[in-house]
Parts: sequence; structure tokens; C-alpha cells
Amino acid sequence: MHSKPRLLIFDVNETLLDLKPMKVAINNALANELAFDNWFSSLLHYSLVESISGKYQDFGKVGAATLKMTAEKFEKQISESKIKDVLSLIKKLPPHPDVVQGLTILKNSGVKMVALTNGTMEVVKAQMAFAEIDHFFDELFSVENVKQYKPHPLTYTHVVKEMKASPIYSMLIAAHGWDIAGAQRAGLMTAFVSRPGKFPYPLAEEADITGSNILSIAKSLV
Amino acid sequence: MHSKPRLLIFDVNETLLDLKPMKVAINNALANELAFDNWFSSLLHYSLVESISGKYQDFGKVGAATLKMTAEKFEKQISESKIKDVLSLIKKLPPHPDVVQGLTILKNSGVKMVALTNGTMEVVKAQMAFAEIDHFFDELFSVENVKQYKPHPLTYTHVVKEMKASPIYSMLIAAHGWDIAGAQRAGLMTAFVSRPGKFPYPLAEEADITGSNILSIAKSLV
Repeated sequence: MHSKPRLLIFDVNETLLDLKPMKVAINNALANELAFDNWFSSLLHYSLVESISGKYQDFGKVGAATLKMTAEKFEKQISESKIKDVLSLIKKLPPHPDVVQGLTILKNSGVKMVALTNGTMEVVKAQMAFAEIDHFFDELFSVENVKQYKPHPLTYTHVVKEMKASPIYSMLIAAHGWDIAGAQRAGLMTAFVSRPGKFPYPLAEEADITGSNILSIAKSLV
Repeated sequence: MHSKPRLLIFDVNETLLDLKPMKVAINNALANELAFDNWFSSLLHYSLVESISGKYQDFGKVGAATLKMTAEKFEKQISESKIKDVLSLIKKLPPHPDVVQGLTILKNSGVKMVALTNGTMEVVKAQMAFAEIDHFFDELFSVENVKQYKPHPLTYTHVVKEMKASPIYSMLIAAHGWDIAGAQRAGLMTAFVSRPGKFPYPLAEEADITGSNILSIAKSLV
């Protein structure tokens, strides 16, 4: 870490919020315990397919399209209304158990804190309100502001600019190796949250900080 | 289809060549029948992570990095030499059983035929020689020419330009919904090969032609 961060940018899904309710619902709907993982990986791939082919369609739409493809792959029927039902669970996710304590420590340290998600602004607002962690953040950001998905450099630099910060004093905190790689390449500091099943990307630099959860990251920072 | 294609651009892996030997090896190495799918999806995602964050590292390197992450996720040990071994199988893949007959029909029709892969030039040359289908193609192309992964528009338009063709008289033939979406958005005609487990991307236009294999695509074209 080359300097103390003045702006912390938190990834949302998996980093702060526990996707388990969606995972259970999708695995049940497709009767396979790897269905959710398969779908989520496909959703991330296709979000970048949109960006790289010069289009933007919101994360919910790409999520529904890829869930349909995943169902076809697993040879399961899934109705449009069932797709809508399981995807709506994204708005009703609990924070991971370490999150409130970790965010409280950081908030009390006086650092600026924002969240940045591939999801839409409408969804992230609903998520933060449901998880009751909205009061920790100075601002919420969606990639829809720049119409490019993470880890496009603009997704990070837009937030930095809007917050009148500098990349070298800003830090992305995420449980995804690809998000860490992108933020590094956009010139930010990074903290990798090594939640179960999440691993750093071997072709990226090591993150400035690694911790098993938000509380341990908070303790490293204050 | 708005006009008869004068240049056919074939995707390689899964479209022409059967990845089954790699699938078996990776599923065995990680003791899970969805390990290969999980890895391949992650490889495609991370290849675009490289492109969108402004970097290029070759497909073999991204393949090894993501296989390591997949092994960690499945809580299995996999040595560097084992990774090398299973990834080297990419050079020893059989063509799908319909491929030689389909390519023969198309070649006899006099249309120009090339292949375009996310893999390196070295790998695609070895693949074509091993599968004994190299003589069907006027040229082989790798995305390393433009240092962007498919479906970046440049990957397609570079081939079209090199072949002195026009996008509207060129057709991409692929078993991947994301590849079809990208080629469409770059102005090419498209043929989707609906191999088992492969489905079109619902947010793309319908392909100009759909067929269950290369032979049926060939019959639609001549």
C-alpha cells in the first residue's frame, strides 16, 4: 500500500452481501448444486460480451438471458415468471456477518466510503436499504453511469472523479479477482476479500491488502 | 441472410473441434463432472477481463491461471505440470464427426474459408494439423493479431480486411452465442451451430442460419 486510502470503494454482491438466498433458489430451480455458480460465471462473461461488443444492457436483463441459457444447458424448464422470482431475490440479501462491524470501524475512522456495483442503481439502493447498511455510504454508484461493466477502467475512474478523489488515494475492496485486476490497472489501491470459494487472479499483481472478511480488512486499514 | 457469403470465418474450439479429451481430463483431475464447464466459463470471462482492462495475455496463460483458480474453488490440488499436461490436450482434439463432410461441401462450392480463434496462432496451427483439416482453410487467424479477445469487433473486422472481403459478404460460423452476438454487432452474417449444450444468447438477434452441425450449415449454404 503506497499511501493511506482516503476513499474506499466497495464492491457489493458477494463482497458485502451474501448471495446464498439466490444460490439456494437457483440450485433448487435447476436441481443441481453447481447451477448457481455456472449461471453467475456466465452472467459475468456475458456482461463483458455486451461491453466489448459496444453495447450496454442492464445487469438484470443479462442475468435473465444467461439464466435461461443455463436452464437450457441443464435441460430444465424454467418459466419467465420463475426467472423473475429468483432474480428478484437480489434485492433481499443479508450482509455477511462481518460487514456491519467492519463498516462501523471504517466509518468511525472518517474515511469516505462508497459502493460500486455491476447492478443497476435501482437494485443497489434496494439492496442497501434491505441489508440496513445504506447509512455507511457517502454515495452509491452503478456501472450504468458509464455504460461499461467492471472491470472497465472507466467504471472505477468515474467514481474517483465524482468523489473528487485521486486514484492513488482510492482503494477498491472486492471478493473477486477480476475486480481487483481491473482496479489495479486503473491505478487504484486494492483490498482482496478472500471469502470462501474466492481466489485472487494469478495474472494480476497481489492486492495491497488481503483479508478473509470486511472486519479483517477494516482492522488492517485503521 | 441478406446476401450469399463469399467468406466463411469458422470458430475453432467446440465449433469444429471436440473438446471432450480436455473435458474428461479436467473433470478427472478435479473429480467433478462440472469442473471443465466451470473452468471454460471462467477462462472466457477472464479473457475479456484482460481485454476490457486494456491488457492482452495469451489464451494459454489465461487458461492456466483460471484452471488454478477452478482447482482452488473445487478444493483440489493440481500441480503446475498437471496443468500443463491437461492444457496441452488442446492441440490433440478430434474434429466433430460432421466437420470433414461439411467442410468438403463448402470447399467444393468455391467459397473462401478461414478459421479464427481466441487461441494463439501456434496452437491453432497444431490443432488443424492434428485434426487433419488444415487444407480446407485459405488462412488461419488468431486474436493475437489484434490483441483483443472475441467478441471485440476488431477481431472479426481484422480478418475481413486481411481477406480483402466486406463484412456484409462475410459470415461467422460458431457454436457460441457470445461469438454470434459479437460478429452481428461488427456487421457480419452469422451461422449458429447448435451443438449439444450450446444455446443462442437471448439478447442477440437471431443468427442468419442455425444448424445442428457443420454439415447441416453447409447444406443450407450451397
